[in-house]
Amino acid sequence: MCRWMAYSGDPILAADLLFRPVHSLIDQSLHSQLGATTTNGDGFGIGWYGEGSRPAVFKSIEPAWNDENLRELAAQLRTRLLFAHIRASTGTPVQRSNCHPFRHGNWLFMHNGSLAGFHDYKRELMLAVDPTLYPDVEGSTDSEALFFLALTFGLVDDPIAALSRAVGWVERTAARHGVPDPVQMTVATTDGVSMWAFRYSSAHLSRSLFYSTDVRTLVALHPEVEVLHQLGEETRFVVSEPLRELPGAWNEVAESSCVVVRPGADEFVPFAPEAPART
Amino acid sequence: MCRWMAYSGDPILAADLLFRPVHSLIDQSLHSQLGATTTNGDGFGIGWYGEGSRPAVFKSIEPAWNDENLRELAAQLRTRLLFAHIRASTGTPVQRSNCHPFRHGNWLFMHNGSLAGFHDYKRELMLAVDPTLYPDVEGSTDSEALFFLALTFGLVDDPIAALSRAVGWVERTAARHGVPDPVQMTVATTDGVSMWAFRYSSAHLSRSLFYSTDVRTLVALHPEVEVLHQLGEETRFVVSEPLRELPGAWNEVAESSCVVVRPGADEFVPFAPEAPART
Amino acid sequence: MCRWMAYSGDPILAADLLFRPVHSLIDQSLHSQLGATTTNGDGFGIGWYGEGSRPAVFKSIEPAWNDENLRELAAQLRTRLLFAHIRASTGTPVQRSNCHPFRHGNWLFMHNGSLAGFHDYKRELMLAVDPTLYPDVEGSTDSEALFFLALTFGLVDDPIAALSRAVGWVERTAARHGVPDPVQMTVATTDGVSMWAFRYSSAHLSRSLFYSTDVRTLVALHPEVEVLHQLGEETRFVVSEPLRELPGAWNEVAESSCVVVRPGADEFVPFAPEAPART
Amino acid sequence: MCRWMAYSGDPILAADLLFRPVHSLIDQSLHSQLGATTTNGDGFGIGWYGEGSRPAVFKSIEPAWNDENLRELAAQLRTRLLFAHIRASTGTPVQRSNCHPFRHGNWLFMHNGSLAGFHDYKRELMLAVDPTLYPDVEGSTDSEALFFLALTFGLVDDPIAALSRAVGWVERTAARHGVPDPVQMTVATTDGVSMWAFRYSSAHLSRSLFYSTDVRTLVALHPEVEVLHQLGEETRFVVSEPLRELPGAWNEVAESSCVVVRPGADEFVPFAPEAPART
Repeated sequence: MCRWMAYSGDPILAADLLFRPVHSLIDQSLHSQLGATTTNGDGFGIGWYGEGSRPAVFKSIEPAWNDENLRELAAQLRTRLLFAHIRASTGTPVQRSNCHPFRHGNWLFMHNGSLAGFHDYKRELMLAVDPTLYPDVEGSTDSEALFFLALTFGLVDDPIAALSRAVGWVERTAARHGVPDPVQMTVATTDGVSMWAFRYSSAHLSRSLFYSTDVRTLVALHPEVEVLHQLGEETRFVVSEPLRELPGAWNEVAESSCVVVRPGADEFVPFAPEAPART
Repeated sequence: MCRWMAYSGDPILAADLLFRPVHSLIDQSLHSQLGATTTNGDGFGIGWYGEGSRPAVFKSIEPAWNDENLRELAAQLRTRLLFAHIRASTGTPVQRSNCHPFRHGNWLFMHNGSLAGFHDYKRELMLAVDPTLYPDVEGSTDSEALFFLALTFGLVDDPIAALSRAVGWVERTAARHGVPDPVQMTVATTDGVSMWAFRYSSAHLSRSLFYSTDVRTLVALHPEVEVLHQLGEETRFVVSEPLRELPGAWNEVAESSCVVVRPGADEFVPFAPEAPART
Repeated sequence: MCRWMAYSGDPILAADLLFRPVHSLIDQSLHSQLGATTTNGDGFGIGWYGEGSRPAVFKSIEPAWNDENLRELAAQLRTRLLFAHIRASTGTPVQRSNCHPFRHGNWLFMHNGSLAGFHDYKRELMLAVDPTLYPDVEGSTDSEALFFLALTFGLVDDPIAALSRAVGWVERTAARHGVPDPVQMTVATTDGVSMWAFRYSSAHLSRSLFYSTDVRTLVALHPEVEVLHQLGEETRFVVSEPLRELPGAWNEVAESSCVVVRPGADEFVPFAPEAPART
Repeated sequence: MCRWMAYSGDPILAADLLFRPVHSLIDQSLHSQLGATTTNGDGFGIGWYGEGSRPAVFKSIEPAWNDENLRELAAQLRTRLLFAHIRASTGTPVQRSNCHPFRHGNWLFMHNGSLAGFHDYKRELMLAVDPTLYPDVEGSTDSEALFFLALTFGLVDDPIAALSRAVGWVERTAARHGVPDPVQMTVATTDGVSMWAFRYSSAHLSRSLFYSTDVRTLVALHPEVEVLHQLGEETRFVVSEPLRELPGAWNEVAESSCVVVRPGADEFVPFAPEAPART
């Protein structure tokens, strides 16, 4: 029950992404229009790539709209790949370790949605996590459990297959506990080069997810919108909600699909839960 | 741009006041219906009378809906007089010293509203504060300035006269700076025995304020509502927004007036800004 | 690497326990003399019994010496049983869910010490936790793991046997991972009536732990110390460090032993790790 | 009662300044050796120059040693001019607006010390602040008051003269209130190009302050210390406490003096309070 934004493209000031757009993610933290909750005030986080290959994360349990440090940092930070997430808790504590994006090595992961009935089968999911990864779980959310399952099922080698196995595993585990349609997710993950965004829910009623039209097309459509001229050609946004009204700018990611954003042409792939390879 | 609730009556568990009502103050922190803002997530505070004559205050910069300590405390705290306030900042920092209620000696004070153009004439207001009180100002809000002006103008001896002088002083000061209609306020203050609630704005377009019907009448109207039978006869609520729908339960405080709640009959007094006595 | 204090006796103001003593727990948070660390500034918590049988907890990630809300609350709170804990993290995050005391039903539990090499065998410990309890684990510390193991092994029915099994389990699990002498603990637990305090370490080099001399004896020794005359006869403190210098007032809890504090005579029992019943 | 560090030189990773030295500022937050307090856990702040001419500030009320965001940021942030400050409060609240460094336009300012008896004459100091600056005061500390006095007396044009007037003003004001020897200060201020560091106290018993030997000399003295080879020739540290033991590396700033660090040769100037120009 959150909102997120992923940016990939030429290095850009984070403030231009987080604060400048009319309906920026920070604005959405107070006034979400498409989300299940209008207020997303239970912490936030950003992750980005800069020095070294390991991404940095900045997270806080304050509402994003209040955080002075976020404003200061955003005004200084230039990055070619930014993840940002605002949280609306579904019950787990508001603490830094429950804020997205989660990080493992050079990977980032963030999630909007929930695993229904998670409390009932949390232990089984956690047992399925690779024992060498288990002690690195820091928080208590269903989202982090999903991330660690995906890591266990090979996220680093094949993100789409890994998510597919992780989601399949959750669905079968939930079914054993009599929980139907457990998964609701829009997920973004990245290794710092490519970016994968998933839209899926067991009941095929997924939360909204949009990706941006390529910049050349946008400039042709709206030559009068100045900000577009400053964006590089490889610019791509994937967002829970459009950042501003602009006809032709935002395309809905299809139900049960994955967008792969990487240098060159994007890819659109159907997404479905699979049986995990290792059972 | 806040919401508040004041309770006076038989000792009652704070949780029954803050969390149990359908549209409790905590609920209003996420979903205010009558306020200028729907989200009041920029800190909160409660003040109450217990041990000793000096009231206690508990304040936090987290949104009230998230604060585990508030839940714990409210489940343990019985009090005969409770002030509670949820803040929506109009620009001053979200820090404990800017949270209401403010305290001085055995007095509490809380405010919903703002002093328009405060930044322009803040210094002049602060200069008018009694020099012996000045160093006790801890925060940076217009609300605390109004409180210290009221203290300067005799709050402890005559709250209505003191507020009237303080408001008059603000209006004249603002006028000198070319700011028309500066005051927007619903204010509650108490010495631990009586409670004064004001509704006033320079433009006579004041925020909502309600006081509760006496309990005997309410029971006669709604004998089926069980919670009413548990409330003592001296129970009185004054609130920014009704805590639940109940025909006949809530009475609007009139524009430019003050309600005085004390043991025995309440009093309703017109309120108008006066010239301060000491100029 | 923490400090704690447990009080049982006549209802007393928490401020008289937490702030008044010369070397109070709050003072120890800045200037511990016997602890492994001189600063215990990584959060704190208190737990107490008041309304209902379920204890309340108040926890914060701020250093105890800074927390205004703790001062306010302590000045209002009268209780017959108080647990207080100041934390010095050994690496796990400073977040509310990692602060002591931990609570389950009407039980409280707090720990000073650590499980050496915890990261290496955390998963195995967590798998041993009763599956119905597992989802209630909220934080990521070794201390909470120890608490949940003790619950699993029967804390509610027989605290000494349960701790003994839990500690035995930890020692055998650590041994399998090549970690010698894993347990360092002074632990206090209570059901709201009795209180059990343990001092144990695998290497028999346990942290300090003291219990207070009975009040009658103390008054006879120090008739001039006024505060003693205000304490009821059932008063008992168990503390990591003496709260003030007073000859004859503090008795070291013996290595590998447990003190049981309850109405009537206290009990002193040897403590040793056992084999868990259910393997 | 704080500690600070100022760095000027080639762009360097903040983590190399804040976390890597044996006795780094972060280490000093837990274990100060020369300070009036051994723990400096009442918030911290850093300020630096990067995008634009206005410096950025990152401040937190958590102890510096605990702040995960500080670690993340420091690992990403390269800057040619960094101010860092850890706070030990002398009574004013632990809130972001009371953390150093303070900022005004392109200036930063930080202070270790106190104005004795500040509460008694705070109002008079604040009245002396330029009315156009007054509303920008955000916190409640003596340090921020000193900064705003210095701004009022011309900091932007002539920092040494302005501090000298500000200190003189404080001493005369305190004297009128019967407070002798009010000023204790080591102060650093910068416009992003030059850096001024002051050591002064009314009683001529000032807190410690050190500046670093020029890098060429250091390399000649200690060719085996690798980190020195990575520092540019214009590198200069001014610190409350040496960051590591290194014979010949640290020079005490003389009592009642100011060091001016700027491209080219540093300057050492005597410092004494003056009569303010405008009375």
